[in-house]
Amino acid sequence: MTRVAGLLFLAMPAVAALLPVPASVVSRPGRMLPGSTFRIVIEGADDGRVARAAERTERRMGAHPGSGSAILRVRVAQLSGDDESYRLHVDPAGALLTAPTPLGALHGIETFYQLMEGGAVPSVEIEDHPRFAWRGLLLDSARHFMPPDLIRRTLDGMAAVKLNVFHWHLSDDQGFRVESRRFPKLHELGSKGLYYTQDEVREIVLYARDRGIRVVPEFDMPGHTTSWLVGYPELGSGPGPYQLWQEWGITDPTLDPAKSGVYDFLDAFLGEMAGLFPDPYFHIGGDEVNGHEWSANTTDIPAFMREHEIKTNDGLQAYFNQRVQQILTKYGKRMVGWDEILNPALPKDVVIQSWRGPKGLGDAARAGFAGILSWGYYLDHMDSAAKMYGVDPGQNARVLGGEVCMWTEYVTPENVEGRIWPRAAAVAERLWSPAAVNNVPDLYRRLNAIEDELSALGIPYRRNYDAMLGRLATGADLAALRTLAEVTTAGELAVRHHANPNYQQSTPLDRFPDAVLPESVTARQFSERVDRWLAHRNASDLAQIRVWLNRWIANDVLIQKMPGVPEAKAVSAVLAEISRAALGGQASPALTAALKPIGEVHLAVAPAIERFAKQSPSRSSRGPRPVR
Amino acid sequence: MTRVAGLLFLAMPAVAALLPVPASVVSRPGRMLPGSTFRIVIEGADDGRVARAAERTERRMGAHPGSGSAILRVRVAQLSGDDESYRLHVDPAGALLTAPTPLGALHGIETFYQLMEGGAVPSVEIEDHPRFAWRGLLLDSARHFMPPDLIRRTLDGMAAVKLNVFHWHLSDDQGFRVESRRFPKLHELGSKGLYYTQDEVREIVLYARDRGIRVVPEFDMPGHTTSWLVGYPELGSGPGPYQLWQEWGITDPTLDPAKSGVYDFLDAFLGEMAGLFPDPYFHIGGDEVNGHEWSANTTDIPAFMREHEIKTNDGLQAYFNQRVQQILTKYGKRMVGWDEILNPALPKDVVIQSWRGPKGLGDAARAGFAGILSWGYYLDHMDSAAKMYGVDPGQNARVLGGEVCMWTEYVTPENVEGRIWPRAAAVAERLWSPAAVNNVPDLYRRLNAIEDELSALGIPYRRNYDAMLGRLATGADLAALRTLAEVTTAGELAVRHHANPNYQQSTPLDRFPDAVLPESVTARQFSERVDRWLAHRNASDLAQIRVWLNRWIANDVLIQKMPGVPEAKAVSAVLAEISRAALGGQASPALTAALKPIGEVHLAVAPAIERFAKQSPSRSSRGPRPVR
Repeated sequence: MTRVAGLLFLAMPAVAALLPVPASVVSRPGRMLPGSTFRIVIEGADDGRVARAAERTERRMGAHPGSGSAILRVRVAQLSGDDESYRLHVDPAGALLTAPTPLGALHGIETFYQLMEGGAVPSVEIEDHPRFAWRGLLLDSARHFMPPDLIRRTLDGMAAVKLNVFHWHLSDDQGFRVESRRFPKLHELGSKGLYYTQDEVREIVLYARDRGIRVVPEFDMPGHTTSWLVGYPELGSGPGPYQLWQEWGITDPTLDPAKSGVYDFLDAFLGEMAGLFPDPYFHIGGDEVNGHEWSANTTDIPAFMREHEIKTNDGLQAYFNQRVQQILTKYGKRMVGWDEILNPALPKDVVIQSWRGPKGLGDAARAGFAGILSWGYYLDHMDSAAKMYGVDPGQNARVLGGEVCMWTEYVTPENVEGRIWPRAAAVAERLWSPAAVNNVPDLYRRLNAIEDELSALGIPYRRNYDAMLGRLATGADLAALRTLAEVTTAGELAVRHHANPNYQQSTPLDRFPDAVLPESVTARQFSERVDRWLAHRNASDLAQIRVWLNRWIANDVLIQKMPGVPEAKAVSAVLAEISRAALGGQASPALTAALKPIGEVHLAVAPAIERFAKQSPSRSSRGPRPVR
Repeated sequence: MTRVAGLLFLAMPAVAALLPVPASVVSRPGRMLPGSTFRIVIEGADDGRVARAAERTERRMGAHPGSGSAILRVRVAQLSGDDESYRLHVDPAGALLTAPTPLGALHGIETFYQLMEGGAVPSVEIEDHPRFAWRGLLLDSARHFMPPDLIRRTLDGMAAVKLNVFHWHLSDDQGFRVESRRFPKLHELGSKGLYYTQDEVREIVLYARDRGIRVVPEFDMPGHTTSWLVGYPELGSGPGPYQLWQEWGITDPTLDPAKSGVYDFLDAFLGEMAGLFPDPYFHIGGDEVNGHEWSANTTDIPAFMREHEIKTNDGLQAYFNQRVQQILTKYGKRMVGWDEILNPALPKDVVIQSWRGPKGLGDAARAGFAGILSWGYYLDHMDSAAKMYGVDPGQNARVLGGEVCMWTEYVTPENVEGRIWPRAAAVAERLWSPAAVNNVPDLYRRLNAIEDELSALGIPYRRNYDAMLGRLATGADLAALRTLAEVTTAGELAVRHHANPNYQQSTPLDRFPDAVLPESVTARQFSERVDRWLAHRNASDLAQIRVWLNRWIANDVLIQKMPGVPEAKAVSAVLAEISRAALGGQASPALTAALKPIGEVHLAVAPAIERFAKQSPSRSSRGPRPVR
């Protein structure tokens, strides 16, 4: 018997695929063989959720028929509470999962499923609980509407990696996505027909609850509200009328905090939404209010500010936030908002979601507010899983946890899942597992396994990636394009806006920059090989590096002959040039340029090629002799 | 007691809202009061469908609480068969519905629901059966993807007016919309992620079956197949590769009838789809094969044609159709195709769907084929309900019925329902009711009632119309824009293509031409008033006509001040000019020009204004003296 915790347990292949890593694992010899007659038996309390999770898991395990049969017994102590801990015991005779609440049991069942490999579950003793209570994923369904089925698949993926808060960004300048029966012009004029009916919302909330996931809605205000003002211009701070915003960026239209009618409206609207979304938290956005409409207002705002002794636009927003907070309190909701709402005048039960920098969470905590970290977890910034994994919310009683955020300006239902997964799983582990769990190579190994699990759940991002490349090329061209795509990564929001400021909501996102993924497995492997060669100067590593560089040079010939795909041609030309330079040991300005974005994408292998080129054995002036 | 059939019964207000008109109605004094405790009791056979329809209808009738209570008893003789007839007896003590099959019972329940007015159902004796067995609605879900919820709402509307075939156009050059597990590149490369999963298809087929509606899938071939060839270019007649087609019109890519692999593929693919779609009919399209790829082919097609003694491209398509027909027969399916597949060599159980002209159906019948009429029923041609209502398939044993067709090049999920309804209901009546039922004013009166029923079913086309106008304007501008929109009708496919040949699938369809409806109630009323004045020269009619003309002149001032809406400004300027000319009794070339399309819309009041202007009392040279 070996007792392990966190990091150390990772060496053991028997429990090697778990993601997130549990708080404590004791591995024993032997294994349980669930077999085709395997059953999960609920012995303790249940509100139906555990039985339904058990049934789903039995079905999923049907795909892994073993040679024996056994039972997982599940005992839940009580139905209420938000304790997510569980204990899981597995031995060859069977398995026992105990948990204080159904939430813990749901997590334990997911762990049991992940333990299975080749039809067997290793004998093990797991004690597990999350490091943070708030482990969220934000999905912007306003910039591009995300169909209900995609939301459900995303919730399936969240449950698999123990994320427990679905933050649903439901309104923005470009769209208002929920049916309001009190104010139907919100969705009717604000959505071009793409909105969730209240029935659909209720179904999704129940679907999430069944998987131990809370749904926190966000209705961003007072800025980011153009879609509200199309139907209700009288709520705006400007003269109106307002047009649905078709582009991206920060806009002027803003609710008018000086109008009492705005609060009457919000009281009725938030009352309706409070009933639709049962979670005790409610997100009001509050970000990126540029104040232009307030400063330009000469009708009611100046007098209102004088009367209330408000000196600045920030003060005006703080006043607005206080009023909204009072309304939400009346409806039993705790208010959440982005960084910008932070103001000492707000009651201390408000929660701050930090996105603008590393200091936000600390500032909020010092001011007495609970906080959620999202800075460093923006999926549309296209950082690597490793980089996001390295961002830690820090241990502080006021830190509730974190949220990985998928904003969808440059993302559609076709490629969004390839932007979310598997990177969101890295953040899921950061928020669940002990802080000491931080071995990056092992993370990538387990992300690889989790990708199989997500695919088995029906999340089609690999298939959609194949499809998008397949539409851009066929036959030999497709093989060449794939070779290139596998060392190219998607440009982040700033890069795309810089390359083309004319993007609109209706612009098709089906080109090479949309198809490529945020992170390159090939680039990581190539980089590791270059580093190993730099350290050890091993002849086989050098040979392999040369194989890669020559492959990319040859591949470019095929890419340049392809019809269309100008973005692929541009990046391929750079790749071929720096590969030649690196092989020849020549200095090339392209080596430096390749580190920057190429159009709307990044050449993911450029840093490693540059490192290699500086030390290339062919380099004439310095460095070691060539190795043949 | 009064016995009536067809046309005559229309005079009786008690059963006045029925659409389609039943075959025979006997009206009696007295009425039944269903009340809030009303129940439908199933006494005969049922496969579950009648009970579920009963439950839905009870729920719908909860919105009409009456003062009494009563029971509708339903007796179905047997579960099998496609007899859709029913008899409905209603008296103050209760109601009895008898039908040979569940299909008839479903129709009878809809009739009972339509009979109710103000909480009461009039005493009545109805014997009813359809004139045609095939009463279809085609929805093109390829050019613009139509979400599953919208499909379900469309099925609800179909059931309300006794349409019984949902013809689902699932593939075209621009998109392949069904998940294929045998050939996943069809939907993965052919849909940009917008396709129906097999689970969704099964749900929709069951939803339709529950409402007495069959689902006939169409996979258009050998032309209109670009979306197939993106993933499987080896099936094409050209060298490939193929790109998903983003525009409209007829394209070159075509399956290669000379390749045996094409038939292997189709055998496996159609086998898969035959299992997914249980209906005995299967539509293979077959329209608009331009033959360009076949004529240009120098690899396999010339030799194949020589070998099989095929002289023309038409002959090649006929060969292809025969092979496909054999495959479908193997899977127990009867083949349906458009006009172009008509060929004496085909077995006579093939069904021809006639779309190209009035002769198609007769040609098919003379050649021995059963036929379905769609010529004259194309909703995207934007004909009036009256015009479509006037098109009759004709009585012939080989005429199965007809289908109203909604092609979606210029239609999105937001405005499609306003293109389908209520006009599809007029065709539904043409296909169900006796041929003698053809009173157009009465049709419009009942279409008005059916619009309320469709709205109560949740079909949001009025709401979406309001929303689209609301996005284009607010406040006083909105009132002006609505005044204009109510006399403007949407341009048909040819008009839109002519005005702007650069439309693409991604082009937003949210402008004035997309918002306006296909038919104008105001224009019909105005036209009736002009005709009445022309016949009777009544002073009050003349005064009303002048009120309208002056209103449109004044309205134009508001429209021309609006920001944006260039299409509305153009049509409003013409309307103001011809209104002035008509009031002043002057000749104006604008009066003739206004009869033609104005950009992408029609000015629906132009013909009546022109008729009035020719006889205007202000006209100096001829005509009667002015009436003041």
